[in-house]
Amino acid sequence: MEGKYFAALDVGGTKIYTVIANTKLQILARQQIPTAAAAGPDAVIEQMLLSLQQTMTEAKIKKENLQAVGVCIAGFYDYKSNVLINSPNLKGWDNIRLADILTFKTGLPVVVENDANAAALGEVFYGAGLGHSNVIYITVSTGIGSGLILDNRLYRGEVGIAGEFGHMVIEPEGPLCGCGKRGCLEALASGTAIAKQAQADASAGNSTSLKTLAAQKNLTAKEVFTAAAQNDQLAQNIIKKAFFYLGIGIVNIINLLNPSAIVLGGGIINNTDKTLFQSLQKTIKKRVSTAAQTVKIKRAILGTEAGVKGMLHLLQEEISNARFK
Amino acid sequence: MEGKYFAALDVGGTKIYTVIANTKLQILARQQIPTAAAAGPDAVIEQMLLSLQQTMTEAKIKKENLQAVGVCIAGFYDYKSNVLINSPNLKGWDNIRLADILTFKTGLPVVVENDANAAALGEVFYGAGLGHSNVIYITVSTGIGSGLILDNRLYRGEVGIAGEFGHMVIEPEGPLCGCGKRGCLEALASGTAIAKQAQADASAGNSTSLKTLAAQKNLTAKEVFTAAAQNDQLAQNIIKKAFFYLGIGIVNIINLLNPSAIVLGGGIINNTDKTLFQSLQKTIKKRVSTAAQTVKIKRAILGTEAGVKGMLHLLQEEISNARFK
Repeated sequence: MEGKYFAALDVGGTKIYTVIANTKLQILARQQIPTAAAAGPDAVIEQMLLSLQQTMTEAKIKKENLQAVGVCIAGFYDYKSNVLINSPNLKGWDNIRLADILTFKTGLPVVVENDANAAALGEVFYGAGLGHSNVIYITVSTGIGSGLILDNRLYRGEVGIAGEFGHMVIEPEGPLCGCGKRGCLEALASGTAIAKQAQADASAGNSTSLKTLAAQKNLTAKEVFTAAAQNDQLAQNIIKKAFFYLGIGIVNIINLLNPSAIVLGGGIINNTDKTLFQSLQKTIKKRVSTAAQTVKIKRAILGTEAGVKGMLHLLQEEISNARFK
Repeated sequence: MEGKYFAALDVGGTKIYTVIANTKLQILARQQIPTAAAAGPDAVIEQMLLSLQQTMTEAKIKKENLQAVGVCIAGFYDYKSNVLINSPNLKGWDNIRLADILTFKTGLPVVVENDANAAALGEVFYGAGLGHSNVIYITVSTGIGSGLILDNRLYRGEVGIAGEFGHMVIEPEGPLCGCGKRGCLEALASGTAIAKQAQADASAGNSTSLKTLAAQKNLTAKEVFTAAAQNDQLAQNIIKKAFFYLGIGIVNIINLLNPSAIVLGGGIINNTDKTLFQSLQKTIKKRVSTAAQTVKIKRAILGTEAGVKGMLHLLQEEISNARFK
């Protein structure tokens, strides 16, 4: 096909999701492949290039019609010096000049962004945050992250690492977090925290249907949610406590940033039933400042496509800002 | 004098500070008077008008040469509907259309802003935050508040109440806060919290030089600081604990917003000696995300003038945005 097109890739610890879209941001082709994370950055970059090539072929797009590539990736991305400082889910990705490498390999302008920031842009401009100017997108999965859309723009902070919501300290003497500090929200309310707590409780001999499973392997958050759905009291209490902390964290972000909407996504939220989501909303409304009560607490709606849609939006913005043509 | 001039007023619970400046923001006259807070809004508004008149007279400015008036005030200010929702330090100021009232009385354009926001603007454009684009101004006095300068602009949030840093929950089951919720930073680290803790400990019979004073009257934070300076162990421990919580709160704001500078002002910070300030900096550096370590922790330098300087800056901005001429 003739004309101009964009590509966007969402690179996570477990999968790479690639799309080709026209400049109206209509997606023409999609591909999802498992990330060869253990093989290190070089191998993953080769995977990205191959996926890009295959998705272009599927969309019948020639390389000369591709205008720019957007990539979102889990990790600390220094957008001023265009360096991926490191990634919690991709071992060995330290101080990687990802945009430069991809530009060198493709000859195209490449924009890289943190995945939570990209998902925030996606949800605000095409998803659950539509029509809101001040939105906090929060993702709760193995980790906890956020993207801040303030006054209709992505707020990145001084070097690009704003939104480290998972490392908000809620219990100063609480459990140790993966970051090395104590009592972070991520150590209290993430999928990892839920699984770890269930594993510890089951191993300690507490009464739970998860006991046999926990003796064989490390429990996952999904297994804890399944047990809770089957009325396992211990699993229910662990999830309840995690969601209490999540609620407190969200209250803090609301009091500080006075958004009109909070959009919640990620694996843990996808596993959250109506009752649990309502109890989270209740915790928030109970604790938040009176003047900030009008805030809407919503579920994300774009799922897997939030990140790439955000990147497509960013590419379109770069075009209109004439950063590249 | 001929030409164009600005007036700015900082209206607090204890004093009204008024200045007249030229359009280069050079201050030509100043006045400080005690606020007749107990007499209610009407009386205070009359005080403001009188102070404005007297300061103009002192600066030899005629009313026709005054271009606009800026007022900053402690409280929740809804900048979209231009209504002071309420003020913790000024009883009876509920849902007051302060800008409209002052425009009606003076015939001049009036801009009203929350005092922490105004001080943030002052410190960023003329004080300790100069040269930084992403700055959090934090004031620690009887209460705790903040003003957020993000990407060189004041971030107000959806209705104008962003920066409610004092109501960040740090200990979910902690002491009751004035806002009715538990474990807010303000209930753990403000001047009020410090005084209250000392009063409780002294009354409970703990060993402290403050015992006699506490039996006669309610202690103030200043008295606790004085006792600490005279090596009172109990006073020192109370302050140490409050500053630990303040440090945790600042860590949370840094991880979330990735600023390049934190500017600290307010009565409690003014009473903070070098050793205590350094221990605060140490708590922060120890807990903050590695990638955000470059943040500078500074003392405010404008003192009483931060608020009015911020308002003068806002008036100048409004002029250049042609909101009024």
